[in-house]
Amino acid sequence: MSKRIKDIGEFGLIRRIRELLDREGVVAPRVTLGIGDDTAAFLPRSGFEVLVTCDSLVEGRHFLPGWITFKELGRRAMVQNISDIGAMGGRPLYALVSLGLKDDLALEDIDDLYRGFLMELNPFRASIIGGNLTRCGAEMFIDVTLIGEVEEGKALHRSGAAKGEVILISGCPGRSAAGLELLLHHPDDPRIKEHPLVRAYLTPNHQARLGEAAARSGWVSSMIDISDGFLGDLGHLLTESGVGAKLFSEKFPIGKDLKKEAEGLGKAPLDFFLGPSDDYELIITCPPNNAVKVQALGAALDPPVLLTMVGEIIDRPGEIILVAENKSELPLSPKGWDHFPLRK
Amino acid sequence: MSKRIKDIGEFGLIRRIRELLDREGVVAPRVTLGIGDDTAAFLPRSGFEVLVTCDSLVEGRHFLPGWITFKELGRRAMVQNISDIGAMGGRPLYALVSLGLKDDLALEDIDDLYRGFLMELNPFRASIIGGNLTRCGAEMFIDVTLIGEVEEGKALHRSGAAKGEVILISGCPGRSAAGLELLLHHPDDPRIKEHPLVRAYLTPNHQARLGEAAARSGWVSSMIDISDGFLGDLGHLLTESGVGAKLFSEKFPIGKDLKKEAEGLGKAPLDFFLGPSDDYELIITCPPNNAVKVQALGAALDPPVLLTMVGEIIDRPGEIILVAENKSELPLSPKGWDHFPLRK
Repeated sequence: MSKRIKDIGEFGLIRRIRELLDREGVVAPRVTLGIGDDTAAFLPRSGFEVLVTCDSLVEGRHFLPGWITFKELGRRAMVQNISDIGAMGGRPLYALVSLGLKDDLALEDIDDLYRGFLMELNPFRASIIGGNLTRCGAEMFIDVTLIGEVEEGKALHRSGAAKGEVILISGCPGRSAAGLELLLHHPDDPRIKEHPLVRAYLTPNHQARLGEAAARSGWVSSMIDISDGFLGDLGHLLTESGVGAKLFSEKFPIGKDLKKEAEGLGKAPLDFFLGPSDDYELIITCPPNNAVKVQALGAALDPPVLLTMVGEIIDRPGEIILVAENKSELPLSPKGWDHFPLRK
Repeated sequence: MSKRIKDIGEFGLIRRIRELLDREGVVAPRVTLGIGDDTAAFLPRSGFEVLVTCDSLVEGRHFLPGWITFKELGRRAMVQNISDIGAMGGRPLYALVSLGLKDDLALEDIDDLYRGFLMELNPFRASIIGGNLTRCGAEMFIDVTLIGEVEEGKALHRSGAAKGEVILISGCPGRSAAGLELLLHHPDDPRIKEHPLVRAYLTPNHQARLGEAAARSGWVSSMIDISDGFLGDLGHLLTESGVGAKLFSEKFPIGKDLKKEAEGLGKAPLDFFLGPSDDYELIITCPPNNAVKVQALGAALDPPVLLTMVGEIIDRPGEIILVAENKSELPLSPKGWDHFPLRK
């Protein structure tokens, strides 16, 4: 039988993780002290702001073991944090991983979790410089703190959108939410995990390369990632900017596969596109004259990132109007992903 | 009835927390972006290293609701992180708080938790610049990431101790562990919470001011906080430094109250002093000639901090020898606080 945490203890586990990181990870630049002291330390780069974010995944709430592998779980935990750094126009550098683990967890599963973290960090030459391990009872949790940098004054905030600007969205939001529903509807189909929409759920992408390019360009006025869903995060951006938005549904990047599967699930593709979905795409606003240049930034990336103009900023704070194909206008409510939904 | 999280939802709770922080907290220097965007941001100080640490408290594992107030819980969560920054010789600046909360938690309890954080942060002009909220099921958790700074090259590591140096300990370790036992032995005594040893458990101190002064002085060779207990963390320091230690039990700062209560609990005061205990004191090593000067650093603080010479560094890697009052020598095993104890 494979070894478990309780067979090697906390300090044995820390040693094992350090060895795995030494073997399979990289060392980020300017780390002056890594894992193994009271704190980690780094020497920040002059002329750069330090960005810092944290996000957690809780068993039963954000994931169900058995539905997702530990490597996928590690990738997901890191991707959602990289997405936040990217949404500021920054570059990820240093991660701290705080885990609550059950003591009968297999060591191979923990290895795979860290391999998932590294799959996302290594391409940036970012590394895990610290963390914490503790035992939990019923619910495992993964809490990642990610630190990045952005050139001083270049960070893109949520608050910069202005009337008359265009709204761009990267990729095709909604695919992940549809994939999750497909997965839950076909629990016994082993091939379902290979469905492109289910892949979108299990291994979401971030758009941090795009975010960095957008911030450097100086062509963009505001940016946010859609971890609370397209409509929820557009709502946050509009609130912080004190403006409203008009959206044109015929422009929405909704692919054939999402249309087909939404129909099979008895839902409108629009619900997936607008609602909560773990796609970690970026909403970007910019003056109309810059839109094509910003789209070209996305196209120049490897792999290229599709940027679609889906709406425009209007002068009515907090309002979102959906313009249908027949030109009729429908007011929408910006409802995000609320971890504690109201109960009335 | 008092309001609960589910009555105001996640975004309502975030708003409430931001308002409390604006009202009762401070704003740390050089914060360029606080709570309310995809990440927080700050402009690091030139010539300083950034220190970063994280530590968590899990319900049922590190605390039992009913035995500790939410304000005490907040203080404890912050103190253990401040202690880590202090153990490097650094100064805390920015905190991120990631919480897993049950949705029937009263809003006043969350207010008190944050007031506890602020009680420890405000004296440093340190502030909470970000975090994450999520719902949990069975076990609440508090995961704090704390960021600090230390002058470049001045950080004190675990690895600097050398043969012939003296070992100093701040305060009186073991009081917190004895207080916890007292609390558990007298669950129905309402006055027990006022016992000095129980107070030591419920509201532990950090020695970050001492740590900062020690690092600045240049008189100290290594430092560590004793979050894993005196013996456990001395063991870490010896391992990283490649040396051993001789401890003189007659020098140990064990007060009358600890002696008395240990006897009542049927234990040796030495077990409390050496073993796991949440006292967050500092072990400091320095050349013998510097010892009195380092003690004077502690005495000059407000409030003054007692520093006691309890041993010396010897040239036998990993060995710890306890010299009893009768001069007999006993080899000790450095056994720290293991969150996943071995099961054989």
